[in-house]
Amino acid sequence: MKLGADEIKLPTSINICEVGPRDGLQNEKTLLSIEHKVELIEKSVQAGAKIVEIGSFVHPKAVPQMADTDAVARKIRRVDNVEYRALILNLKGLERAEDAGVTKAKLTASASRAHSLANINRTPEEVVRGFEECANYAATHNMELSGAISTAFGCPFEGRVAAEQVLSVVSCFREIGVKELSLSDTTGMANPLQVYELCTKVQKQFPDVKWVLHFHNTRGMGLANVMAGMMAGVKYYDACFAGLGGCPFAPGATGNIATEDLIHMCHEMGIATGYDLDQVISIGRTIRKMIGHDTASFVLDAGKCSDIVKPQK
Amino acid sequence: MKLGADEIKLPTSINICEVGPRDGLQNEKTLLSIEHKVELIEKSVQAGAKIVEIGSFVHPKAVPQMADTDAVARKIRRVDNVEYRALILNLKGLERAEDAGVTKAKLTASASRAHSLANINRTPEEVVRGFEECANYAATHNMELSGAISTAFGCPFEGRVAAEQVLSVVSCFREIGVKELSLSDTTGMANPLQVYELCTKVQKQFPDVKWVLHFHNTRGMGLANVMAGMMAGVKYYDACFAGLGGCPFAPGATGNIATEDLIHMCHEMGIATGYDLDQVISIGRTIRKMIGHDTASFVLDAGKCSDIVKPQK
Repeated sequence: MKLGADEIKLPTSINICEVGPRDGLQNEKTLLSIEHKVELIEKSVQAGAKIVEIGSFVHPKAVPQMADTDAVARKIRRVDNVEYRALILNLKGLERAEDAGVTKAKLTASASRAHSLANINRTPEEVVRGFEECANYAATHNMELSGAISTAFGCPFEGRVAAEQVLSVVSCFREIGVKELSLSDTTGMANPLQVYELCTKVQKQFPDVKWVLHFHNTRGMGLANVMAGMMAGVKYYDACFAGLGGCPFAPGATGNIATEDLIHMCHEMGIATGYDLDQVISIGRTIRKMIGHDTASFVLDAGKCSDIVKPQK
Repeated sequence: MKLGADEIKLPTSINICEVGPRDGLQNEKTLLSIEHKVELIEKSVQAGAKIVEIGSFVHPKAVPQMADTDAVARKIRRVDNVEYRALILNLKGLERAEDAGVTKAKLTASASRAHSLANINRTPEEVVRGFEECANYAATHNMELSGAISTAFGCPFEGRVAAEQVLSVVSCFREIGVKELSLSDTTGMANPLQVYELCTKVQKQFPDVKWVLHFHNTRGMGLANVMAGMMAGVKYYDACFAGLGGCPFAPGATGNIATEDLIHMCHEMGIATGYDLDQVISIGRTIRKMIGHDTASFVLDAGKCSDIVKPQK
């Protein structure tokens, strides 16, 4: 576009995946009961969520908050046309997901070589190729896989992650048949120009992939990055109720973009999300009570733009 | 632009006005000494600020923190090509500014009729016409005026403020000869699409005005709004060290966009600001100590994207 052009084009609607029950809660010290988790998931769906990341099938000792994902998955009342997905690390996790009736699973690989080597001593490409058995299992068991590419924009070890490196990981995911991929700004290092350019590039090179963006607001650019993603035509966004989640490399820094902040911005711009914002705000307040502390949510703190007050003389 | 177009056009540089000494400090309970204020202003200029709002010439009882702006103005070591400006309300303030050697003054009117009537019982247009004596005085005393249009995007009494209403206030400012105007999102209600559309409209209708944007991050859209402004071609932005400043209608809500957050985003995108970010971060830390509490600054909390850490196995 030209600077000062008359029009900025945005989608008429986007889809927001509620990742709070997994990405948001996993680092909270207060362990929530199965009933509370089920309540949060069911209320999110009532509020309009069509995609919810309900938990993860990982080793209970690694992430104690996620130890009861099996029970949570069995207990939630399912609503038609809502996708309930969970994070897994390997075939064992995928089998547990299947047992619990979760048919969509998310697998994560890091785009950053340094990050991947430091975490699990394998390159990003080796990690994705290692998911092939999961892909084969899913294909023969009527399950769907989604791939998440973490540190897709920046990595605290490497700095800016090159688009070529992301594309290489995308290629590996495509080779094992994964058709839905999220680009995750795990540590809040993406900037809007980079988001626009990377989204444009990956969509052009892999037009058959369903692209998802996952932003953190670590350095205040979360919603600006969503704007950039929307201008590039991406229509799926992760967000987390009440803005839970953090950044392991910046203690005290803010985490995921808050679902209510994202919905609020979209609705202010006339972009449909399918959510009832007031219900989402209510969920955010509930969560703050459940975990017993404040969270990084602008709309929970300041209210909506449409909260009109009476003039005082 | 088309969705998914290859390129997003942004300016190669922008100008950031440091409004912290006035807009940031005015609501702080801890009264800073003249020496501390002078230190903050001089350090901001050393860090790269070319425009600094150093205080306001208003009644000392109305804003105690600004009671010593005369003394501050006299004490700062002036640097060539730096604009030191102050807020005034009327001719008396303008005369005080002149006495203290401040040759650039800012006058504020609200775009919202309800807000203006509730605050000072006059319409926005009446308020601006009331500034005519200031404009005449400035013209004959080698002083410059800048106009600030508050609640230019939204008002807690009226909700969304129509572009036509803003344009009407702009017309009044132009009639009294003011050529520099800021659109202020006083209560953090602007959204990026609205910013883009309003900026495009005002620039087209008033191409000879020097346009400035003033955003708050009350609902998390601050930097997204800057992106929208930059895409619309606006090159002047207010920001406040450490993200001080609040919203009178939302106690506890965040205030102005933080200078360091704005500079950080720009530099990450290759947009020059003329600032040394490390020096600005250092100023932010100093202010937090001076006022004795935390502030809404992402970069102060999380560090820069370029703060590389070593992998830990």
